[in-house]
Amino acid sequence: MIKVIDGGVCAATGFTAGGIHCGIRKNRTKKDLALIVSEVPASAAAVYTTNLVKGAPLTVTKKHLANGVAQAVICNSGNANTCNADGIEVAENMSAAIAKALSFSADDIVVASTGVIGQPLNIQPIVDGIPALVDSLSANGSSAAAEGIMTTDTVEKSVAVEFTVGGKTCRIGGIAKGSGMIHPNMATMLVFITTDCAISPAMLQKALSGDIADTFNMVSVDGDTSTNDMVAVLANGLAGNAEITTEGEDFSTFMQALNTVTVGLCRLIAGDGEGATKLLECKVTGAADTATAKTVAKSVICSSLLKAAMFGADANWGRVLCAIGYSGAAVDVNKVDVSFCSAKGEIPVCVNGAGIPFSEEKAKEILLEKEIDILVELNSGSAAATAWGCDLTYDYVKINGDYRT
Amino acid sequence: MIKVIDGGVCAATGFTAGGIHCGIRKNRTKKDLALIVSEVPASAAAVYTTNLVKGAPLTVTKKHLANGVAQAVICNSGNANTCNADGIEVAENMSAAIAKALSFSADDIVVASTGVIGQPLNIQPIVDGIPALVDSLSANGSSAAAEGIMTTDTVEKSVAVEFTVGGKTCRIGGIAKGSGMIHPNMATMLVFITTDCAISPAMLQKALSGDIADTFNMVSVDGDTSTNDMVAVLANGLAGNAEITTEGEDFSTFMQALNTVTVGLCRLIAGDGEGATKLLECKVTGAADTATAKTVAKSVICSSLLKAAMFGADANWGRVLCAIGYSGAAVDVNKVDVSFCSAKGEIPVCVNGAGIPFSEEKAKEILLEKEIDILVELNSGSAAATAWGCDLTYDYVKINGDYRT
Repeated sequence: MIKVIDGGVCAATGFTAGGIHCGIRKNRTKKDLALIVSEVPASAAAVYTTNLVKGAPLTVTKKHLANGVAQAVICNSGNANTCNADGIEVAENMSAAIAKALSFSADDIVVASTGVIGQPLNIQPIVDGIPALVDSLSANGSSAAAEGIMTTDTVEKSVAVEFTVGGKTCRIGGIAKGSGMIHPNMATMLVFITTDCAISPAMLQKALSGDIADTFNMVSVDGDTSTNDMVAVLANGLAGNAEITTEGEDFSTFMQALNTVTVGLCRLIAGDGEGATKLLECKVTGAADTATAKTVAKSVICSSLLKAAMFGADANWGRVLCAIGYSGAAVDVNKVDVSFCSAKGEIPVCVNGAGIPFSEEKAKEILLEKEIDILVELNSGSAAATAWGCDLTYDYVKINGDYRT
Repeated sequence: MIKVIDGGVCAATGFTAGGIHCGIRKNRTKKDLALIVSEVPASAAAVYTTNLVKGAPLTVTKKHLANGVAQAVICNSGNANTCNADGIEVAENMSAAIAKALSFSADDIVVASTGVIGQPLNIQPIVDGIPALVDSLSANGSSAAAEGIMTTDTVEKSVAVEFTVGGKTCRIGGIAKGSGMIHPNMATMLVFITTDCAISPAMLQKALSGDIADTFNMVSVDGDTSTNDMVAVLANGLAGNAEITTEGEDFSTFMQALNTVTVGLCRLIAGDGEGATKLLECKVTGAADTATAKTVAKSVICSSLLKAAMFGADANWGRVLCAIGYSGAAVDVNKVDVSFCSAKGEIPVCVNGAGIPFSEEKAKEILLEKEIDILVELNSGSAAATAWGCDLTYDYVKINGDYRT
């Protein structure tokens, strides 16, 4: 039984969070610094971008997590601290400053940054803001932290669940920053997840690495894999369950709970992609294998032409077929069925790779909804996959035509 | 000496062309049917999309060109004749109808279609229009044919050159249809090229296949590889040169002339991408090998974020670095230099993978031009490549948000 609850990254016992405006951003009403703290040292795991250009904070965090333990996450928005000559030094200083204020070891800090690439990050506003940041910590602080990591996001992204392991009630909660430059590969955007479930660092890493292949790596807003993608999980064990150290029933339960949180965050990230008006979910079924299903789902969700058609509520399914055809997956295109689906119903538009007559009026009604499923049946096996994306709109162009000003 | 001349697909001796509105499109002022005819049977070569979903006309053309000979090209716009149960039959009938009117063999016809996917193509307007289409043939008809194959293109795309082979003056001319769903792979959009140079079918195919790897396959408007991409070349030999049947000086000259035409068409296609306000040219130098240079150039030109920044004349070079980093090419990102360049000058913005101070005012002046070069020096070898693209604009979204209506 996995139950969705409130509380975000503070839902799990022993976690507090906070966020402030410290001055990295000019807009004083927008928080730009976030902090998440565990009462006790926690098992920690993370995955990072595969982009060869890596933000300096990722290098520093990777070093800090080498021992599988962390106790706090600090993250600024407004500047990615990437492609700067002094990036590593700044990220180290940022860690050291918050570690000192919390009386932690500097290598128990996860440090992250998001924002513009290639502009030196001035550490002074961060250092000056740390007392206020620590003051802002509270058991209700998930929302403030979520706001602190947002860039062009328009909504806070937070999901939490409750579940039982070894007779003990456990919780997992997460916050995310998404919006643009979203096409994760091995990791994603910024996602911070906390849990009070007791689990060893090795099993936590295994759970996370296994999960992201089906979740964050299946999200795309614009096909651009960021330099600063990171998902980090802290597990402080305060739920009191017997520590999960091997695969088995407890690990499976933990994986399911984690997946509920990550899928929820994926949907929030895709639905709030830069300029998006719609969440698109491409569900591929009947594939010969999972790799094929994933390749097809992701190709469909990444097609600029399909994304623009969805913005216009235009049932232009030829673009779905086209994206399947160039995906690189070995698909028998003459067996493909396509339907569009939303809260207003489902409409088949293509059977065996060819168009069938359908009501344009009904299709329009379905596609005017805010959440659209694109159902692709390959009729070639039993493997399935889902990918998440959003429509391509005027506002995506507007936001990215002059992001830096 | 390769000299650029007028005349498009009629520049070469013995070619006529024409175009009419036959009624596939509702808009009577837009031509929707084009014809190119050689006075005598010609060596013929073509390359096609690698999309697994292939337009029916491609299948028919491939069959017709099996013997390396063709004498005419017929192409409609407004409907791609793709993903239709009767597609092959319609394409065969279209070939047969024009062959009959011209007294040619049906298998000497190159047939092509472009437009919406998955709507049955009604052949009646085409059959009814054939007398007028044949009447429209003239030595000045390249422009009418170029108009007949346009979809959302805003300008006719035509390039022709004159050169000398074996003491004889030869000509190569081409027309193209580009705009959206442009991310060719092994072929491209629709391009028809004619030449009076005598060259065997095998060498013509070799020249074409060799050329497209550096030209049409390096163009991207939106990352969507079409189902109907095709480049076809007819060489009728009327220039009177000794037929090119092997590699050597004549073949090299022919390749250079062909490349001048194809690069010219690439630039026209990229600069007239759907909604585009700018032509982007990414020139990668200093690569360890050509494959690396191509991968990097194409990744940069395909980045939605960079494309939107170029629309906004925003020198957001971090997006160039980001796109290099996720390209999949093995690049030492700490050695990368980036400059932006246009008719207004050149401005270096990144050296050794890190930002350098630059005048935002000067950068803006450079980026407000209509043709922007993005210069990427990898400092790791001597290989180079160029890719062509365009900016991402409100109009791309507008055009594709409701293409079918």
